[in-house]
Amino acid sequence: MNEPDVHLQPGERLDHLLTQELKIIQSPEVFSFSMDAVLLARFAGLPPKGKVLDLCTGNGVIPLLLSTRTEASIDGVEIQPRLADMAKRSVALNRLEGKIRILEADLRTWSQEGAVGGAYDAVTVNPPYMPKGTGEHKENPHLAMARHEIGCTLDEVVAACSRAVRKGGRVSVVHRPARLVDILESMRKHRLEPKRIRFVHPRKGSEANMVLVEASKDGRPEVRLLPPLVVYEDGGGYTGELLDVFYGRKTELTDERQTEGEG
Amino acid sequence: MNEPDVHLQPGERLDHLLTQELKIIQSPEVFSFSMDAVLLARFAGLPPKGKVLDLCTGNGVIPLLLSTRTEASIDGVEIQPRLADMAKRSVALNRLEGKIRILEADLRTWSQEGAVGGAYDAVTVNPPYMPKGTGEHKENPHLAMARHEIGCTLDEVVAACSRAVRKGGRVSVVHRPARLVDILESMRKHRLEPKRIRFVHPRKGSEANMVLVEASKDGRPEVRLLPPLVVYEDGGGYTGELLDVFYGRKTELTDERQTEGEG
Repeated sequence: MNEPDVHLQPGERLDHLLTQELKIIQSPEVFSFSMDAVLLARFAGLPPKGKVLDLCTGNGVIPLLLSTRTEASIDGVEIQPRLADMAKRSVALNRLEGKIRILEADLRTWSQEGAVGGAYDAVTVNPPYMPKGTGEHKENPHLAMARHEIGCTLDEVVAACSRAVRKGGRVSVVHRPARLVDILESMRKHRLEPKRIRFVHPRKGSEANMVLVEASKDGRPEVRLLPPLVVYEDGGGYTGELLDVFYGRKTELTDERQTEGEG
Repeated sequence: MNEPDVHLQPGERLDHLLTQELKIIQSPEVFSFSMDAVLLARFAGLPPKGKVLDLCTGNGVIPLLLSTRTEASIDGVEIQPRLADMAKRSVALNRLEGKIRILEADLRTWSQEGAVGGAYDAVTVNPPYMPKGTGEHKENPHLAMARHEIGCTLDEVVAACSRAVRKGGRVSVVHRPARLVDILESMRKHRLEPKRIRFVHPRKGSEANMVLVEASKDGRPEVRLLPPLVVYEDGGGYTGELLDVFYGRKTELTDERQTEGEG
């Protein structure tokens, strides 16, 4: 298909987004998506249709990937004007304006608007991982805000997810395992009951360096610990299971029924 | 060496306890130790000497195993007279009366005695896994009490651990992953900060069916997610890594330094 015209700003480049017929605008100095975002987009429980929200959406990588898995309309919220603009241009580039809407907003105040409360069937978020005061002054302001809890804390992110999602809807988060207790505690505090957890280990025999958690609003307390996902073979190169998840060939983690009935 | 005389009650038998020169009295109708207890005894952070406590000690399997890893004196607390008696006879059988003391007591009241508070450098516990009202009436009273939260709830167990351990000391628990959020929430509520977590998966590609958690009293919030432990090979039989842990050949999980300095 013919691509719409796209204006690239200095430092930006156009990348293919995995095997899908998707392209995305990136910039090493402003924002490039990471494996974390891709794994979250594969892991998250989604409704077949309805409304989905992605917070801290960055350059819109998660809405773009989710659009291949659901007929739902998808809203992406990003606080940084520069990144929200990148995301909007990527959506237009893929002719997905009818399905994906990028909003430039602060999730803390935006999620408290009347129209937002409980409006979404599923929410995803790949929030900043690092606490304030852990080196953000060494980075440029765009990267610092995407990586550090400058614009919002973990608890503020979880509170916003909870406000946005309907009862029984799913909230999926990717984060660092070191913060596991904070994540689970904050979720339960905000009526999001963890239901599925998957740890990602760089190698067999290594400690986990990533965790995926899916919670259900007002769900029943009982969590499933999925098989670990190992990223690299001992000899180098990605594992088969990582590639299966990465390219969406494995659907085990995307059980759509889960977002329907059971809380 | 010559064994002391031991009186076996009807239904009891004498089993070898792994490779160590240890024997243990068991009874299928009253109490037999499980893999959970062995893995906990290998996983738990221990001081080289000092005082160690095992709650819900059953037939004393964990104190017996811990005695091979530390010079500390070890107290085991068990509420059921029949099981406490079995444990005492096993201690005598192994001539470990100078190192292991079995106390028949209710951990809820016992842990509130003045002499107990903060007296221990490390605490282990393999508590009942199943909530009340989940079929305990179908079992005999001994097994029902060891398996179901009849004599104490998870939160009461964690509270007792916290009262017994000194600041900076370690508390190690084995439980079902379905209760992970309850465990971590209860630990933090009682000033036990989770520091190391290891999930046990029956097979590669299976969900976890066991979790080991080590916490530090008043520790700094940051948890390590250890490599998963897989129990069975796909073709059947135990994995090499399971056997290494089971027989204490792998010391990776038993870093004694951890109980010393850092909180």
